[in-house]
Order: sequence, then C-alpha cells, then structure tokens
Amino acid sequence: MITSPDNQHLKQIRKLAKKPERERTGLFCAEGEDLIVAAQGAGVEPELVLWAGADVEPELLAAASTLGSGTRVIGIYPQRFSEPGGALSLYLHGVGDPGNVGTAIRTAHALCDGPVVLGPECADPYSPKAVRASMGSLFARPPARAPLAGLPGLKVALDARAERSVADVPAEGPIVVCLGAERAGLPDEVKAATDIEAHVPLRPDGPESLNVATAGALALYELARVTSRMADDA
Amino acid sequence: MITSPDNQHLKQIRKLAKKPERERTGLFCAEGEDLIVAAQGAGVEPELVLWAGADVEPELLAAASTLGSGTRVIGIYPQRFSEPGGALSLYLHGVGDPGNVGTAIRTAHALCDGPVVLGPECADPYSPKAVRASMGSLFARPPARAPLAGLPGLKVALDARAERSVADVPAEGPIVVCLGAERAGLPDEVKAATDIEAHVPLRPDGPESLNVATAGALALYELARVTSRMADDA
Repeated sequence: MITSPDNQHLKQIRKLAKKPERERTGLFCAEGEDLIVAAQGAGVEPELVLWAGADVEPELLAAASTLGSGTRVIGIYPQRFSEPGGALSLYLHGVGDPGNVGTAIRTAHALCDGPVVLGPECADPYSPKAVRASMGSLFARPPARAPLAGLPGLKVALDARAERSVADVPAEGPIVVCLGAERAGLPDEVKAATDIEAHVPLRPDGPESLNVATAGALALYELARVTSRMADDA
Repeated sequence: MITSPDNQHLKQIRKLAKKPERERTGLFCAEGEDLIVAAQGAGVEPELVLWAGADVEPELLAAASTLGSGTRVIGIYPQRFSEPGGALSLYLHGVGDPGNVGTAIRTAHALCDGPVVLGPECADPYSPKAVRASMGSLFARPPARAPLAGLPGLKVALDARAERSVADVPAEGPIVVCLGAERAGLPDEVKAATDIEAHVPLRPDGPESLNVATAGALALYELARVTSRMADDA
C-alpha cells in the first residue's frame, strides 16, 4: 500500500499529465474503471495499475488524478498507433482541442472501419482530456499518424461552402474524410492535396458551421452509406 | 476608460461566471467578437458591451474573462428562452456537461426547426462553457425549458439497445428526440413518458455508445429526413 505522495509511481502518474513525459516515455495514463476495463477488452497490457484502497491511499490517488472528482483507479499504458487504412476513415488537420480529437476517435470507432489519422498540429490523443473523450475507443482503435498525401483512397475535404453534398460523393474505393480546425478549416495547401470537396447538408437558416467532432460524425454517418452501397454492388 | 478592477461593470462580469448571479439577474456574459456579432445578427440588445482598449484596459478585461487566453470584448445580455415546438426538436434530461448542452444547441440550430428543450438536471445553457460551445446559436435559437410530458408530438427515446432504428421512426407529426445523461441514459420514469424507443445505427464492432451531443446530432440528421419526407407527402 502506497502511503506517500513521493512514491515513484505516483510521481510518474503526475508527470504523465504533461506532454514532455508522455513523449519521453511513450506512455500515458487512463483514469477510471471504464477505461481500465476497455483496455482489458482490447487486450492492452498496463505497465501499472493502482487501485484506491488496495494499492494506494485513496486521497493520494485522488491527488494524482487529473479529474476534479478524483478516481478509483489509474493505469499506465503504452501509447499505440494504427496504420492508416479502411474503406472509410477520418483525417484531422490542426484540430487542437483534445476533447474534439478524443470524441472523433470514439465516433470513428462507431461509424467507420479505419482509424482517425492525425496530421500536423492536432492535439495529443494521449493527453488526459483526449483519453477521457475517446472512452475505450482509444484502446480498441488507436489513432494513426500520417501525412495526407500518403493516404490511399478518395480524399474528401469537408467544407461548408462546397457545392457537393457528402451524400453525392462517388463510391469507387476507400474514402478519407478530411477535416480542419474549427475556425480556420483546412489550409489551402492541404486542400490542394484532397480530391474533392463536400459539405454536410444543414438547414439554410442555421449556423454557418458545426463543432468539428459533430461535422466529422455526420460526414462519416452519411459516407458509411455510400461505402456500404459500394460493398453491396461488389 | 475603466482603469480599476473594482469597477462595478467588471465586478458584475466576474460574478456572472457563477450561477447564483445569473439566476438572480437573468443575465449572462458572452465573450469574443463572434458571439457579439451573433447577438447583433439575432437582434439581441446587450445590457453592456466592453471592448478592450476602448472601454477598459485590456489586462483588466482579460482578468474578468473566463477564457485562459483573455478576450477582446465581453457583453452582458438578457437570458432568453424559447417555447417548445417545431416539426423536429431535441429534449435533454440530466445532461450535466455544459459543453454538451451548448454543442447540442448549436447542432439543433443546424439540423432541426425546434429548440433544444432542457428538462431537469441539465447544465445551465448560460454558463460560460455552454455559451462558448453553442456559438451564436444561443442567440438565434434560445433553448426552451419544459417537462417532457407537456411536449406535443411523438417522443422518441434514444437508446442504443432499442430494436428500431431512428431511420424507421414513423412520420406522422412533430418528433421530439429524447436524450439522457451519457452514462445513466434516460431514467425509467422519463422513458415511460416517451412513445417509442430508437437507436442510431452504429457498427457492431464499435463502442457501445456515443458522446451525448454526437448521438443527438446523428438522430436529428436522420430524423430530418423522416420529417422532410412527411413534408413532401403533405
């Protein structure tokens, strides 16, 4: 039973809340039973798991937690990354909000067969906020890291001003939905590396844009139909 | 030009970050040019607008801001609430995360004609995080507050375990999509007040559930088709 805040495991947990330690070690923390169970379900072995009351005094674990409410368990896990691929996947460029990155990982796991591919200037998917937003999907379907240019398939730039609807994207092979930062959108040089532009159909009297994770969800939902039509035709 | 942190306007802005002052006054703060412009566009008159540099010393406005990065402008506005209604709307019960409430308000504005109806135990839509997540939609389409039982139309409880897909919801009149808290879902007594249950179709190998704002977005997207078929038939 750990009874000192100076314990080396607790020190490491606190350090892993910051990016430099995550980069140095290739590790990250998952907090809460749901995530520990999700890791088990995905067959990911922890480096360390500390349960409040059994392994460590609850107040000490709470103090090491990034959750305001404390936590019953914290695990340390290896960061894992997938290869890009799948009939349908999502590429993010410059999505700096870790909650949006984590939510996108969870949503893509629910709606498509490929991973979320992280381009430049995206938030660290293994930061505490992103891990929490991704729920277990980070373990089941780790994100990929790759430049857009190297991805196989039809690259569809999501843009609210595009003429074509995502419902009318041609189904001829793998599709990669490409999303930029919430305000800036995709930079021109990234757009130039995509094949077509498409919009998610919204009401004309509504807002100009959606939350980036929501826009990605709707595009994947619609394009999952397109790619399943393709599978039916095959 | 305000040059003292003890100025009464700055004091009120700081107080409005907390719920008791918002409840006492019926006011709230919007930060950043986008929201100030959105309020203008929706014809909502501010009680007060303070621009950094023109009305107040920038450091003092930054100190009154709830944004870590500070802000160029803060406005104080009256809280407004809509009446429930529309061919398609979203009812939230126990959605305690202000970011999810705000994102739902933005998404509903983009996808349906009715407001987000807030039931018991939802986060305050006028809290700083919710205001930020809602973007301008809070001004253009204020939320409603009403008990589920009084809402007109077919009440569809969103439940991942329901047999029926949202795509197969019958189109016979107004539809209210009912969503519960992320983990707990809708309590039984609330479910009893709904008419049917339906799920958003997800991959069988994916996560059991979605982020609550994402689930609402996909349900509204699919049901907007259902209600537009109804409009076409009429």
